[in-house]
Amino acid sequence: MKENRLNKKKIINDPVFGFINLQSETVFDLLEHPFFQRLRRIKQLGLSYLVFPGANHTRFEHALGATHLMRQAIATLRLKGHLITEEEAEAVTIAILLHDIGHAPFSHVLENTLVNISHEEISLLLMQELNREFEGKLDLSILIFTNQYKKQFLHQLVASQLDMDRLDYLSRDSFFTGVAEGTIGIERIIKMLNVFEDKLVVDVKGIYSIEKFLISRRLMYWQVYLHKTVVAAEFLLINVLKRARELKDSGADLYTTPTLEIFLGNAFQPKDFRENIVVEGRNVLTWYTLLDDNDILIAIKEWQFHPDPVLSKLSHCLTNRKLLRIKLSDKALSRKEEEKYLKAIREKIMPDEKLATYFLMTGVITNSAYNKHDENIFVLNKDQTISELNEASDVNLSALSKAVRKHFVCYPKELDNY
Amino acid sequence: MKENRLNKKKIINDPVFGFINLQSETVFDLLEHPFFQRLRRIKQLGLSYLVFPGANHTRFEHALGATHLMRQAIATLRLKGHLITEEEAEAVTIAILLHDIGHAPFSHVLENTLVNISHEEISLLLMQELNREFEGKLDLSILIFTNQYKKQFLHQLVASQLDMDRLDYLSRDSFFTGVAEGTIGIERIIKMLNVFEDKLVVDVKGIYSIEKFLISRRLMYWQVYLHKTVVAAEFLLINVLKRARELKDSGADLYTTPTLEIFLGNAFQPKDFRENIVVEGRNVLTWYTLLDDNDILIAIKEWQFHPDPVLSKLSHCLTNRKLLRIKLSDKALSRKEEEKYLKAIREKIMPDEKLATYFLMTGVITNSAYNKHDENIFVLNKDQTISELNEASDVNLSALSKAVRKHFVCYPKELDNY
Amino acid sequence: MKENRLNKKKIINDPVFGFINLQSETVFDLLEHPFFQRLRRIKQLGLSYLVFPGANHTRFEHALGATHLMRQAIATLRLKGHLITEEEAEAVTIAILLHDIGHAPFSHVLENTLVNISHEEISLLLMQELNREFEGKLDLSILIFTNQYKKQFLHQLVASQLDMDRLDYLSRDSFFTGVAEGTIGIERIIKMLNVFEDKLVVDVKGIYSIEKFLISRRLMYWQVYLHKTVVAAEFLLINVLKRARELKDSGADLYTTPTLEIFLGNAFQPKDFRENIVVEGRNVLTWYTLLDDNDILIAIKEWQFHPDPVLSKLSHCLTNRKLLRIKLSDKALSRKEEEKYLKAIREKIMPDEKLATYFLMTGVITNSAYNKHDENIFVLNKDQTISELNEASDVNLSALSKAVRKHFVCYPKELDNY
Amino acid sequence: MKENRLNKKKIINDPVFGFINLQSETVFDLLEHPFFQRLRRIKQLGLSYLVFPGANHTRFEHALGATHLMRQAIATLRLKGHLITEEEAEAVTIAILLHDIGHAPFSHVLENTLVNISHEEISLLLMQELNREFEGKLDLSILIFTNQYKKQFLHQLVASQLDMDRLDYLSRDSFFTGVAEGTIGIERIIKMLNVFEDKLVVDVKGIYSIEKFLISRRLMYWQVYLHKTVVAAEFLLINVLKRARELKDSGADLYTTPTLEIFLGNAFQPKDFRENIVVEGRNVLTWYTLLDDNDILIAIKEWQFHPDPVLSKLSHCLTNRKLLRIKLSDKALSRKEEEKYLKAIREKIMPDEKLATYFLMTGVITNSAYNKHDENIFVLNKDQTISELNEASDVNLSALSKAVRKHFVCYPKELDNY
Repeated sequence: MKENRLNKKKIINDPVFGFINLQSETVFDLLEHPFFQRLRRIKQLGLSYLVFPGANHTRFEHALGATHLMRQAIATLRLKGHLITEEEAEAVTIAILLHDIGHAPFSHVLENTLVNISHEEISLLLMQELNREFEGKLDLSILIFTNQYKKQFLHQLVASQLDMDRLDYLSRDSFFTGVAEGTIGIERIIKMLNVFEDKLVVDVKGIYSIEKFLISRRLMYWQVYLHKTVVAAEFLLINVLKRARELKDSGADLYTTPTLEIFLGNAFQPKDFRENIVVEGRNVLTWYTLLDDNDILIAIKEWQFHPDPVLSKLSHCLTNRKLLRIKLSDKALSRKEEEKYLKAIREKIMPDEKLATYFLMTGVITNSAYNKHDENIFVLNKDQTISELNEASDVNLSALSKAVRKHFVCYPKELDNY
Repeated sequence: MKENRLNKKKIINDPVFGFINLQSETVFDLLEHPFFQRLRRIKQLGLSYLVFPGANHTRFEHALGATHLMRQAIATLRLKGHLITEEEAEAVTIAILLHDIGHAPFSHVLENTLVNISHEEISLLLMQELNREFEGKLDLSILIFTNQYKKQFLHQLVASQLDMDRLDYLSRDSFFTGVAEGTIGIERIIKMLNVFEDKLVVDVKGIYSIEKFLISRRLMYWQVYLHKTVVAAEFLLINVLKRARELKDSGADLYTTPTLEIFLGNAFQPKDFRENIVVEGRNVLTWYTLLDDNDILIAIKEWQFHPDPVLSKLSHCLTNRKLLRIKLSDKALSRKEEEKYLKAIREKIMPDEKLATYFLMTGVITNSAYNKHDENIFVLNKDQTISELNEASDVNLSALSKAVRKHFVCYPKELDNY
Repeated sequence: MKENRLNKKKIINDPVFGFINLQSETVFDLLEHPFFQRLRRIKQLGLSYLVFPGANHTRFEHALGATHLMRQAIATLRLKGHLITEEEAEAVTIAILLHDIGHAPFSHVLENTLVNISHEEISLLLMQELNREFEGKLDLSILIFTNQYKKQFLHQLVASQLDMDRLDYLSRDSFFTGVAEGTIGIERIIKMLNVFEDKLVVDVKGIYSIEKFLISRRLMYWQVYLHKTVVAAEFLLINVLKRARELKDSGADLYTTPTLEIFLGNAFQPKDFRENIVVEGRNVLTWYTLLDDNDILIAIKEWQFHPDPVLSKLSHCLTNRKLLRIKLSDKALSRKEEEKYLKAIREKIMPDEKLATYFLMTGVITNSAYNKHDENIFVLNKDQTISELNEASDVNLSALSKAVRKHFVCYPKELDNY
Repeated sequence: MKENRLNKKKIINDPVFGFINLQSETVFDLLEHPFFQRLRRIKQLGLSYLVFPGANHTRFEHALGATHLMRQAIATLRLKGHLITEEEAEAVTIAILLHDIGHAPFSHVLENTLVNISHEEISLLLMQELNREFEGKLDLSILIFTNQYKKQFLHQLVASQLDMDRLDYLSRDSFFTGVAEGTIGIERIIKMLNVFEDKLVVDVKGIYSIEKFLISRRLMYWQVYLHKTVVAAEFLLINVLKRARELKDSGADLYTTPTLEIFLGNAFQPKDFRENIVVEGRNVLTWYTLLDDNDILIAIKEWQFHPDPVLSKLSHCLTNRKLLRIKLSDKALSRKEEEKYLKAIREKIMPDEKLATYFLMTGVITNSAYNKHDENIFVLNKDQTISELNEASDVNLSALSKAVRKHFVCYPKELDNY
């Protein structure tokens, strides 16, 4: 039976990489855990499917793909003579498998609306929970994930400019959105990885591949991740939830799923998660692992019919893809322009002054959110010295990592030609 | 504004075919209709994502893809000298766009559990509804869809052995499941289409492509559509809903979403849909267009915690992918074997005799369900005669379209080694 | 230096499989040998590039690809518990690397025109020659190649219905001709390979992949390998060389390259190759390894301007792709029809009765030439018994391996509408 | 018959773009002309196949591919409202079909060794020749090719930073070398083309695609076109031909093919081509159209056995891929270092002082050769103004078009560890 399982079930078809071969029993057991299975119900790109109809892929697939790439990276580094023990290999593989386990539904959007804690922190709390269940088998994974392990390059395989997370998601998001240009030379980049003084570096002959990777990433930011229609949809979602919470706080009758009820009705703080407080008979982390995209989508579908004019209209727009107009600009909307928009909204859509503000959204988008690991990429020269990528390349790449900020304003279509 | 819309919004990124260019304003308006937008929330392959993690694609994408292929087929046939007017071209394009609009969530599974009407009939009812809204613009599409239009080959482009529906779904399902072998030579098959005496035929030089198409289809049946683990999941879902309805009928307290409530609480008959009766303030077709995959998945997630031991256990299994064992066989389970299974279930899982039966599922799977259009494929010879494919090919293809039936039994893992 | 070579040079870019990683020093040394480098100048598909402009790939690339697949097959079989020693792995890899080393230019065409010995026999003679040079390092490879080694399945990896030769060439020829439908599920087929009682078999769950492989192969025969325009070009080439030899035998002045001179001027017999006789200061095998596609193409280009009307006209046709018409039929040309063609040729092209026959070619094409290894494919059932594929599949596949014969006649375009 | 031809022969399988559909009879007739058929015997990437075994593709395929892209570009521009008459469309298609017709074998290498005239000038001379044969049908094509036609953007489709030539060759070379990273988003770039004030421009939303295109192009320069081993092979070829000419001039007996004989024996000047002088019974352009890769390769294969020690050794190296070592450096070899190399060569390989110099090659490689059209790329903003790409992009792209120069030295392997 056991053997059967080992041989058969661990080969998984993946549209992006072909066959994915899980090689460890612990990895397989973690995959089968409800915490991990939940990721099947969290879309990798949130609302982007409203613009890219194929972008229905989930964090489940992404975690599998990153695990697959980790195996390849380990093999490459071992071939170049770097010692990675079996135990370390398994630990770093588990770390990448679980790196996103704490993601909330639509998480880039909802992290500050629905839950006041970063998904990274939740990931760690869930890993610790799993570690208890798996009786310490994740000890080393957690050390690597939190960068407390002596071999720092293992952490960098999980979280850095060239981590397996990023290599997978760029490939995968490019694949499912159909933005073929986002493709990166993943096989070659991995073959070019190396370790120098405990740091993850790139062999100098891989420099053009890295340049291409950086340009592809930039293209994906602007063409997909920060696509303006996607941004418009995300801010619509934020306003829907803001209004829902407001109504709930005011005691209005509001349909929710049981799990969403918990999160709309309580404003949990990081401390609550860390202490894992009990609410309605379950502790908060358990509630969290029951929350997925469907809770949000089902609620919004129902809210179309809610008596509140703001909630119903915004929910109708989101469910049926009647998105807002969005305009990008280098500078923020002036107070005067904002007034002009609000006046129009009051005239055409919502006379109430306060409620009118729900139909105007302004803010800033920036690619820096996607650039968290902003440490440099290092290149290993043939003479066994290292250089920063910017020195090694004869193209000025610094611009590529520079944060770009764009101001936006979203407003209803009814204001067209106003 | 208008022009803006025409130029920009009608190019859609599709991972399978690249850019899809919608060329008609009516097609675009239909695409934006809530009836069609609902398809974004209906997975093309139901529960198959439990086996093929990438199979999260939806009927929305499939309908778009089939529309894209229809445009190519029209261009090919026109190039070969067959008259297709602009009006006919638009009508047949709309027919394929809307061919699946009546699909229920998990429809192959739920058609006989949740609703007692075929999705084809609902599709027609919804098209007629849309036709009223669009003031008769769908008249010709409906004639073609129902095969009442004089040029029969137009209907065959929508529904036949070589329709655009099938060409798209085989390609698309192969793409998203990662079963690369399912790939068919779609571009060549379309180039080989022709019309002879008002019938859709294939040029004789395309005969090998058709053979390959038939073999690929067969491979997809057994490797994907009838994959035994998928079948096990589907019968689990059927039993979950059967039990839920039973509990509801018996007056038990049962969480549902508002829309699911309507369908669990009423046993609508085809007549109810045809007459579009009003229930709880909305007519039944409107309720239907509010129902999607998420209603089912959310309910099942909650039912894990229901006091009924059958409902909670089965729901837990489905939500967390603890699927049943399944065995295929050429002959049905004997009465005696069945008894043996039930006895084991009573001992290990559910002492109650009646409830125990929920944990044993038997039945037959057959590829004939996927073979509805079983008319022959005709080949156009160089001398302008036609032959049936079977005569024209020197391989005996009749076996390929033969229905294959396999008996199965599903039972809980706890019975292993029993 | 040595290490440098091991690390760097052994990764080769292959358009079909990505990176090919040579893992053995002997394999690398054989690759660098002039005998093997010659394969760069022998096109894999002979004259097919006249129909498929991309088909310029060579036997060099094919041999590399097959070697790459062999490594994968070995890994799969080892994973399933079959013992393959390092020595055996290297030997079988070398056997596949060299399996085509004896190919003549345009070899399917010229084997009976220019040299009277099969390329398989030459391959063996050249392997023996290399073995002497490599001081016995190829002993085991030769045993495997000639099926004298105890583990028969190793031979089957090199030459059988499912050998790595065929898996590579079907993929590669499909890739370069652009006949995308020929694609086979190579990754999956290799994963399904197994060994049972020393015989190469296929796991039963791979049965649909094998069906698809057989259908793809059949499609490639008729769509590429036996494409009628390619056949017309090949018979043109045969007649050009036949006429050239005739002229040379008759003492006419005839341009050739030095190497072609040797083969046109001598009618070597297998015995001459086996004894490796000396001609014009070199032994015949050495002369053979100097002969490549370019010798033939250069001569024919020059022969366009030869005074002989047959040689010049046929050579002009081949060089400038003015190919003959070809008609396929189920039965041979009757004596009377042949006379009619010849009469027309005499009237329109070549009055001389004997020379006229050069412009009419008749014969038979059959896929059996591609079906040499006609032993059965065996399937390993789950109960550890084996069945023949035909029994195991519910499709009648015997037709697929049946030899199909088609008669053809080629004649000049000038006879159109005659 | 005619119709037959139109329907059947004009669809060509292309591995890169799928089916290529020739839509014009004149284009088809030009394709069948011996001048164009010759391109089948000229490899697109010269000796690069010695490093990238798949790079056997020819200028014939490239010209077809560029023609295919031209049709798409025309369709895009027409859709955006720019007038291109049928006559202009055919003319610009012919111009791109024939843009490379004057290429010599290994032309980047041999242009200054074998013929003293640029391939562009020969292309024009051959187009004029074809125009006479086609009775003026190419008049407009020639005007466009030479940029004398009023609509300048048509010329830019043939020759500019974003011409169809470049879009095809980058895709195609990336495809056949297996350097997957070179892939550019060709479909999207073409969709983003526009015309503004008679100039070919790019819609602003295509800016990231253009950035990616420039980076891919740069990657292809250094990873493929200027790959150092390819450079080493090219300089070997130059020295082989230099020595061969020297021997011929000195009256030595030297094997050549008849056509190569003409070019080695005469040092034709541009004037000779323009006046199309007669040599040995044919005019020089006719001789030129008889020269192809095979003439060079056959001669070098024979020269392995020539008594001259320089010619034979260098020819042996090239034929059997025993390439020279190459070192790149930022600065030129000093006189002293050069002396050191030459001393070693005299000691180890060739005592004769003058002949020794044949084994040392120094020079400069630069990407500027691939950057001939160095005019700017212009971006069309949404407000219908245009900007230079560098202003429009927030990345500094000027570095990408900057010429990079690297000095190299090639020397025989025997000098290793010297």
